[in-house]
Amino acid sequence: MVRVTVWNEYRHEREDDHVAELYPEGIHTALADALEDRGHEVRTATLDEDEHGLTSEVLDDTDVLLWWGHLAHDEVRDEVVDRVVERVRDGMGFLPLHSAHYSKPFKRLLGTSCSLKWREAGERERLWTVEPGHPIAEGIGEQIVVPEAEMYGERFDIPQPDALVFVSWFEGGEVFRSGCCYRRGSGRIFYFRPGHEEYPIYEQEEILQVIDNAVGWAAPTDGVEPTFSNVEAAERIGEE
Amino acid sequence: MVRVTVWNEYRHEREDDHVAELYPEGIHTALADALEDRGHEVRTATLDEDEHGLTSEVLDDTDVLLWWGHLAHDEVRDEVVDRVVERVRDGMGFLPLHSAHYSKPFKRLLGTSCSLKWREAGERERLWTVEPGHPIAEGIGEQIVVPEAEMYGERFDIPQPDALVFVSWFEGGEVFRSGCCYRRGSGRIFYFRPGHEEYPIYEQEEILQVIDNAVGWAAPTDGVEPTFSNVEAAERIGEE
Amino acid sequence: MVRVTVWNEYRHEREDDHVAELYPEGIHTALADALEDRGHEVRTATLDEDEHGLTSEVLDDTDVLLWWGHLAHDEVRDEVVDRVVERVRDGMGFLPLHSAHYSKPFKRLLGTSCSLKWREAGERERLWTVEPGHPIAEGIGEQIVVPEAEMYGERFDIPQPDALVFVSWFEGGEVFRSGCCYRRGSGRIFYFRPGHEEYPIYEQEEILQVIDNAVGWAAPTDGVEPTFSNVEAAERIGEE
Amino acid sequence: MVRVTVWNEYRHEREDDHVAELYPEGIHTALADALEDRGHEVRTATLDEDEHGLTSEVLDDTDVLLWWGHLAHDEVRDEVVDRVVERVRDGMGFLPLHSAHYSKPFKRLLGTSCSLKWREAGERERLWTVEPGHPIAEGIGEQIVVPEAEMYGERFDIPQPDALVFVSWFEGGEVFRSGCCYRRGSGRIFYFRPGHEEYPIYEQEEILQVIDNAVGWAAPTDGVEPTFSNVEAAERIGEE
Repeated sequence: MVRVTVWNEYRHEREDDHVAELYPEGIHTALADALEDRGHEVRTATLDEDEHGLTSEVLDDTDVLLWWGHLAHDEVRDEVVDRVVERVRDGMGFLPLHSAHYSKPFKRLLGTSCSLKWREAGERERLWTVEPGHPIAEGIGEQIVVPEAEMYGERFDIPQPDALVFVSWFEGGEVFRSGCCYRRGSGRIFYFRPGHEEYPIYEQEEILQVIDNAVGWAAPTDGVEPTFSNVEAAERIGEE
Repeated sequence: MVRVTVWNEYRHEREDDHVAELYPEGIHTALADALEDRGHEVRTATLDEDEHGLTSEVLDDTDVLLWWGHLAHDEVRDEVVDRVVERVRDGMGFLPLHSAHYSKPFKRLLGTSCSLKWREAGERERLWTVEPGHPIAEGIGEQIVVPEAEMYGERFDIPQPDALVFVSWFEGGEVFRSGCCYRRGSGRIFYFRPGHEEYPIYEQEEILQVIDNAVGWAAPTDGVEPTFSNVEAAERIGEE
Repeated sequence: MVRVTVWNEYRHEREDDHVAELYPEGIHTALADALEDRGHEVRTATLDEDEHGLTSEVLDDTDVLLWWGHLAHDEVRDEVVDRVVERVRDGMGFLPLHSAHYSKPFKRLLGTSCSLKWREAGERERLWTVEPGHPIAEGIGEQIVVPEAEMYGERFDIPQPDALVFVSWFEGGEVFRSGCCYRRGSGRIFYFRPGHEEYPIYEQEEILQVIDNAVGWAAPTDGVEPTFSNVEAAERIGEE
Repeated sequence: MVRVTVWNEYRHEREDDHVAELYPEGIHTALADALEDRGHEVRTATLDEDEHGLTSEVLDDTDVLLWWGHLAHDEVRDEVVDRVVERVRDGMGFLPLHSAHYSKPFKRLLGTSCSLKWREAGERERLWTVEPGHPIAEGIGEQIVVPEAEMYGERFDIPQPDALVFVSWFEGGEVFRSGCCYRRGSGRIFYFRPGHEEYPIYEQEEILQVIDNAVGWAAPTDGVEPTFSNVEAAERIGEE
């Protein structure tokens, strides 16, 4: 059992009827329910809560943080971003989803612009499993077909991933590195592309399976906290 | 100026009229001419020559070896494979092209099966540049469109590349890691997918540009030859 | 619980009194006991058994294979090597230990010579944890001190690891990449340096902890077996 | 010929007699002279100049930027940091040296704390060449011995490098990843550890050779500038 916090901007669902119909209680609730069903201990947090719902207490109590944002990346306060970044470096897993490629914590942790091409045309996406032996691909077939998706296309301006698990094909002619693993400090990061607010992608079984796998993979292990300071020599210096 | 040897199985061109029309003097000659035009010193070698044209003298005199094979991988003698593998480890660049994913030296150097999916349907391929800052992508646009190509699809059973430069999109629904960099020993390897014998792909300017760039990238630099032996300690052992 | 097979050449222990005293029932038995104590289901196999103890049945029933060899790498029959390599590509974890850097399966899976420098002077080794957040470093401190060790020094002729977890310091002046992760096919490989036959290194708690962690990390996950064949197009080809 | 800018904080040399003796005209001048001798077009810039000497004009005219700082990282203004980071992403090479591991641009580009252990004891350092085939190791032997150095020790809190070229051994018992390659956007980054202000390390031939090699490696190639925007589909969408 992993302690998961699902963070959501939660604006589309309150402002757009079509989105509200798909996710009546918000994308966060849909994801939280799915992860709870799979045996995790889940809470949610949203942008408009106090401290965006991400107090030190909440973060200290979180093993893996999911992040969904789109319209209001800029409204996320820098002190909360600092806190999230710090916790990731200390070991918390971090799963930015879909448009969270442009979220402040992801850009800060990666060091690049995280820009890409996009198109909203409700086109078909095929996510190919390029690393079937990776834990995040457990139980997933050779490809996941998303019937209608927003397109994200390369060049995706990210550092080379430590592992690349999925690559997407789009009907309109593009490809995209859709499942990318990184480590920053002691924390593990998995960016996962699917999940536009206008399609019921977070109801698709295989998508939820990947997110569940990623939660397991990103959960912290009990590594040493390194000493970062002036240290004494353990071996004698100055012998010839 | 890099000393290049273009190796070709050279069977299709002598057995199939359509291929003979496209490459009347063989794929090796087409590639050699293109690289010579770009300022390299180029020779060719083919399967049916003595020692497949790859004597120790030829290999010692080669900075970068291109390899094209398809029908007759098994006819390449193991002692020549050993020699090629050894030279790569000593620093020679190695550029397996297209169906050379299944060549003996590539499989030996990578340690995997190098298997993949395929289809011959003359479909459109789009190679997207995922690392525009890589030297192999110099002068290349955001994508290279190959009008008619054999499809290769993921899962491509290779080790994770040290750098992934191009990813292909295919009309029929697949993706492929089409430009993959590795180092083995002191030698650099770049696998480049395009180049089926039935389409004039090696006449396409951008494809030749990538191969020229890869020749430059893979050319050996003058690194130290490591000592692999029992060595004396440079520092005193046994002090407390 | 992971199904582990510990393979050992088992020659030193029967030929050398000093080694026999340290590992009276062989290195394999010492490792097997330690892993059994940690909850795994363990069997052993040795060089002089029929098929080196590695029949298809044994390998099919093995999640993770540990490998210790030194004097007799050449006596390992190629058909058994083929079988091991095949099983790794199918997903079996593989943990070559210490002098198994020169074992046939490791060299075949890596594609390099796996050569290095060495010295037997009973010197102190310090293994520094460079990736404290990696699952293989769970519960391990900032460094593991091995009081007396054979030295292995860089250049270690291996492909760049997918992850580098430990780097060793030696009293005599050398460094070494001592804990290296790879994936080949669907299988995970972790090379771990410590373990010379002349010192009781496999009785050291932290060393056993790393091996236990590596067993957990390398155990296969249930990924899809990819199709490697001619495939039909899922999307329509030939539209303009 | 590469257009190089050597940036230096330039405080130690003006405040400390010992440092002033070693580098009477500043570390930047010593490095600039050495690179000019090797055929590059070099300018310098320092913290106390207007805009720290790094105006848009200077950066636009720079292929590779060297960075040396220690005491005054915090005095570097964020707008200049933004400008440097932006230029690296656009393709400018960036070589942070020694204590520049803590410089603002390096931390911003890497996304981690870049913390480490340290000790000033004038101890011996041995930089081992772990990738002799890398262009940055051209002409460098198996190791570089620095007679007296400040120690930097692991855990070094950095993302896993795209390539690891040098690993250091220290007399007092530590190791360090001393030569680390990254790509961020279209720009190449090489962190190189040697170079404390209290020892004449930038007069050591092999150290200057590595820096010269790194300048060559990090110089931008003419890659495409990616489109990051809403794009039209090149292929027809909506066929079944």
